Amino acid sequence: MPVSRPPRSTRTVKAGSLLIGGGFPVSVQTMWKAAIGPADFEAVISSLTRLGELGCDLVRFAVPDLAAAEAVGALSRRTAMPIAADIHFDHTLALRCLDFPIAKIRINPGTLGAEWKVREVVGKAADRGVALRVGVNAGSLPRSLEGEKDPAEAMVKAAEEELELLDRLSFRDAVFSLKSSDVGETIRANMRFSKAHDHPLHLGVTEAGPLIPGIVRSTAGIGNLLERGIGDTIRVSLSAPAADEVVAGVEILRATGRRSEGVKIISCPRCGRTTFDVQNFTEDVSSFIHSTRKTITIAVMGCAVNGPGEARKADLGITGAGKMAILFRKGEIVRRVTYEQALEAFQQEFDKLCAD
Amino acid sequence: MPVSRPPRSTRTVKAGSLLIGGGFPVSVQTMWKAAIGPADFEAVISSLTRLGELGCDLVRFAVPDLAAAEAVGALSRRTAMPIAADIHFDHTLALRCLDFPIAKIRINPGTLGAEWKVREVVGKAADRGVALRVGVNAGSLPRSLEGEKDPAEAMVKAAEEELELLDRLSFRDAVFSLKSSDVGETIRANMRFSKAHDHPLHLGVTEAGPLIPGIVRSTAGIGNLLERGIGDTIRVSLSAPAADEVVAGVEILRATGRRSEGVKIISCPRCGRTTFDVQNFTEDVSSFIHSTRKTITIAVMGCAVNGPGEARKADLGITGAGKMAILFRKGEIVRRVTYEQALEAFQQEFDKLCAD
Repeated sequence: MPVSRPPRSTRTVKAGSLLIGGGFPVSVQTMWKAAIGPADFEAVISSLTRLGELGCDLVRFAVPDLAAAEAVGALSRRTAMPIAADIHFDHTLALRCLDFPIAKIRINPGTLGAEWKVREVVGKAADRGVALRVGVNAGSLPRSLEGEKDPAEAMVKAAEEELELLDRLSFRDAVFSLKSSDVGETIRANMRFSKAHDHPLHLGVTEAGPLIPGIVRSTAGIGNLLERGIGDTIRVSLSAPAADEVVAGVEILRATGRRSEGVKIISCPRCGRTTFDVQNFTEDVSSFIHSTRKTITIAVMGCAVNGPGEARKADLGITGAGKMAILFRKGEIVRRVTYEQALEAFQQEFDKLCAD
Repeated sequence: MPVSRPPRSTRTVKAGSLLIGGGFPVSVQTMWKAAIGPADFEAVISSLTRLGELGCDLVRFAVPDLAAAEAVGALSRRTAMPIAADIHFDHTLALRCLDFPIAKIRINPGTLGAEWKVREVVGKAADRGVALRVGVNAGSLPRSLEGEKDPAEAMVKAAEEELELLDRLSFRDAVFSLKSSDVGETIRANMRFSKAHDHPLHLGVTEAGPLIPGIVRSTAGIGNLLERGIGDTIRVSLSAPAADEVVAGVEILRATGRRSEGVKIISCPRCGRTTFDVQNFTEDVSSFIHSTRKTITIAVMGCAVNGPGEARKADLGITGAGKMAILFRKGEIVRRVTYEQALEAFQQEFDKLCAD
């Protein structure tokens, strides 16, 4: 983007193997969508690996009860993916999680309650070298702030009350988030907080909705802040699978110039001119193209209007042209194949490109 | 959005019943994804009605040959939806379309060729009171501009060459578009063009890709321009169904404060705390909630953390709470139902809300 500001300068917070803020790359998070128990570990670990391949850097798990704390803690011993534990209401769940090698604890000022509980969590997190996220959410503000008329201001105040306590306790390894389901409130709250404090910011539009509206609102909110240089880690919150959240998050970083690695797909929308089924072809290729972190542009085009032009500019391109598909590699025609052969040929060329 | 500039002032262009620019609401377009013939008319007309309910204001059809020109022309007589004809290579197809009540002809300076062809199209469009869109695309620039190093500048030059010809012919009813598959290039080209000319702009990021990356890039590009006050009609270009393009387009207008009517869904992403299947529920409700143009906010929430807070703020809210779902209407609890009864109860309350 031509209009991006450079990232603002923040302190660095270490969440397990992940470094947040301080000029480190903006990371992508998601949240696990279901309760887990030990019986699920194999499947969960393999999903975490897949999420990592898609570009995910940390996964958060809800910890609603002690069984969840035990399960999430045990899981954190068995995966390289940094794990965050999400705690509301009962601070003893956070204390239990801190017996395991988790990367981060998320607490919410509106749901954790009395200061002595926060003190206990902060004390143990400091002892164990675990990061905290203070996650303020417009839907669950502390009761004391319910009278505040401007929701953005109420979120900033909730964050600053908690920050003041962390400062008194000399706890420095905190990331903050200020999320609303309203894009404008989210932007305003983060702009205000980031002006006054050097803590890394975790960005998200909360409860952003189903896939399509959720991606639009998340891009509008997170993207706008990233273009202002604000934001150190992001989570796209969708009523959709975690993998969709990760793919959307990575694309937001890419669209705002914050990440270049991985595959960029250019593909045409189809029209009455198209002889090549671009939509199904892009779905087919997405099964294998996201497992590389190389910086590659591919183009999947339907016809002779923009097809050859886009396909030529890409590292690997395919365009329908009448009854045949033409494959381009870095501007040169490498193969002409039938539509039936197109997927296999494309995958072969893609693998060669990744192997180079 | 708190940072939006007011829309810039442009001339008004009339495309059938749709007014573009001049302070009229930003409209949403899509493009038909397949070839059509008379045998498809009933199905196409019924889809156009559905696209209109979703918020679509104009639908473009590719016209690759004379049979398509006849079909698209005949269709334009049978639907209230404004129809645009997309012409490349053969200007006689545009001339034939102009015998029918179509709303707009799209021409591409890079593919239409010699000036005398453009003159013929422009002359007949003026006679028939039909609007033109000059659609410049970075993937199909005129050969004369292939040496230009900055693709944004090349797009502006292509648009201005055509504009100069339209001015000489005293043709005023033209909308312009400058689209690249690169978000930054798209933004830069539109910013430059809009500074110098008062023509309405049709915004889009071309070949934006499959659903998720395509929505991210379209929101980043179109959203950024709308926030600068630039843009009079938009098209989200996805390798996905036309309805998805329309839903995404409407959401982009909503997220940038350019449209408020219709239903805004707030819904939680699910986590290990959720007892209510929010993802399936939001999919179920999307079958009926998009057919109103009333301004309504609904919230579909999974648990007691943010659920009651968000559900209370919405016009109609539902939140899981243990084994029951609670329905809120404008902050008041109206019903408690089992999860099995939730969809029917929600639809009843939604219908009541729309009928008010």
